[in-house]
Amino acid sequence: MTSFPQTPRTRFVRAPKRGSYDRNAAYAILDEAWVAHVGLVADGGPVVIPTSYWRVGDELLIHGASSSRLVRLLAAGAEACVTVTLLDGLVMARSAFRHSMNYRSVMVFGRARVVEAAEKEAALAAFIERVSPGRMAEVRPPSAAELRATSVLAFPLQEASVKMRSGPPTDPDDDLVFPVWAGVIPLRLRAGEPEPDER
Amino acid sequence: MTSFPQTPRTRFVRAPKRGSYDRNAAYAILDEAWVAHVGLVADGGPVVIPTSYWRVGDELLIHGASSSRLVRLLAAGAEACVTVTLLDGLVMARSAFRHSMNYRSVMVFGRARVVEAAEKEAALAAFIERVSPGRMAEVRPPSAAELRATSVLAFPLQEASVKMRSGPPTDPDDDLVFPVWAGVIPLRLRAGEPEPDER
Repeated sequence: MTSFPQTPRTRFVRAPKRGSYDRNAAYAILDEAWVAHVGLVADGGPVVIPTSYWRVGDELLIHGASSSRLVRLLAAGAEACVTVTLLDGLVMARSAFRHSMNYRSVMVFGRARVVEAAEKEAALAAFIERVSPGRMAEVRPPSAAELRATSVLAFPLQEASVKMRSGPPTDPDDDLVFPVWAGVIPLRLRAGEPEPDER
Repeated sequence: MTSFPQTPRTRFVRAPKRGSYDRNAAYAILDEAWVAHVGLVADGGPVVIPTSYWRVGDELLIHGASSSRLVRLLAAGAEACVTVTLLDGLVMARSAFRHSMNYRSVMVFGRARVVEAAEKEAALAAFIERVSPGRMAEVRPPSAAELRATSVLAFPLQEASVKMRSGPPTDPDDDLVFPVWAGVIPLRLRAGEPEPDER
């Protein structure tokens, strides 16, 4: 299915022109970013935890120490909202009000399933492969104890939405007379020179 | 005060060596990043909304359309968790298990106050000045209608914590024999060539 169904939680209340339920658009964002922010309710209040993640098919996977609070809450079936955001640029307008940011974000609602022991190694290998294709064959694979210490959780990519802004500032014509630079300063996460481990 | 007090919500359960309550460290992160993820409980479940933000003194400010869900919930006194994360690098280890990410993050808990009309213009000006110092004097200032349409909310930087990882992979000595590149691939958000608005 190429679109996510709209639900009460993913309905766009405002600015629907910036929103979509397009699965391919969501997957492109998820496959480019590295950090997800996982929101949970803990002790009655919201908690937002940043974590690495990866996508396998129609699931978004995260991992963590089996003893961590995030893993324990999710494994117990906590409802979550997982948001991934890419910042694409600063939008500089002629009026203060029209300044904005260009971004692409995905919001996923749902509960995670605990990836079972038999599947876990392959799931973690997919993460290493995402970081650097071919690498899994070169590194030491996880030991049984390491696998036990790590939990992998998989969110279904079923109830999700995409929001984005792109393009130049939207100044009204009356503001074009202001003699100030206007446009977009593009921002992008770039890799620097690799830093080899001295050991 | 140079440290945030530890509370039950900000206590580090695991890996306390990666955590701190250092206010200066938190402010350095907040002054470098551009996007915050705001977690709320809405209709009984968690929601995580990405938004731009800025810091003024000991407050973290966000703004939004007065009619937006985020603004309405916060203005009504909703408890929030605001998390800001900078990704600094991919940590490539000799073992699958020791792969990691270098990052710096701040987690802030609390309720926002609604910035009053008299303060609002100065608060928004501080955001424009953060984006580009001196710019506020050059752009068209907000009209009364624009100010009414925009709400500004301020979170106290009181209950907060910092988490970070830096440095090379932590492979045990036994794994140093694996003939695979190990080290850090640094990542950083960089500005590209400015794109002037054609208008």
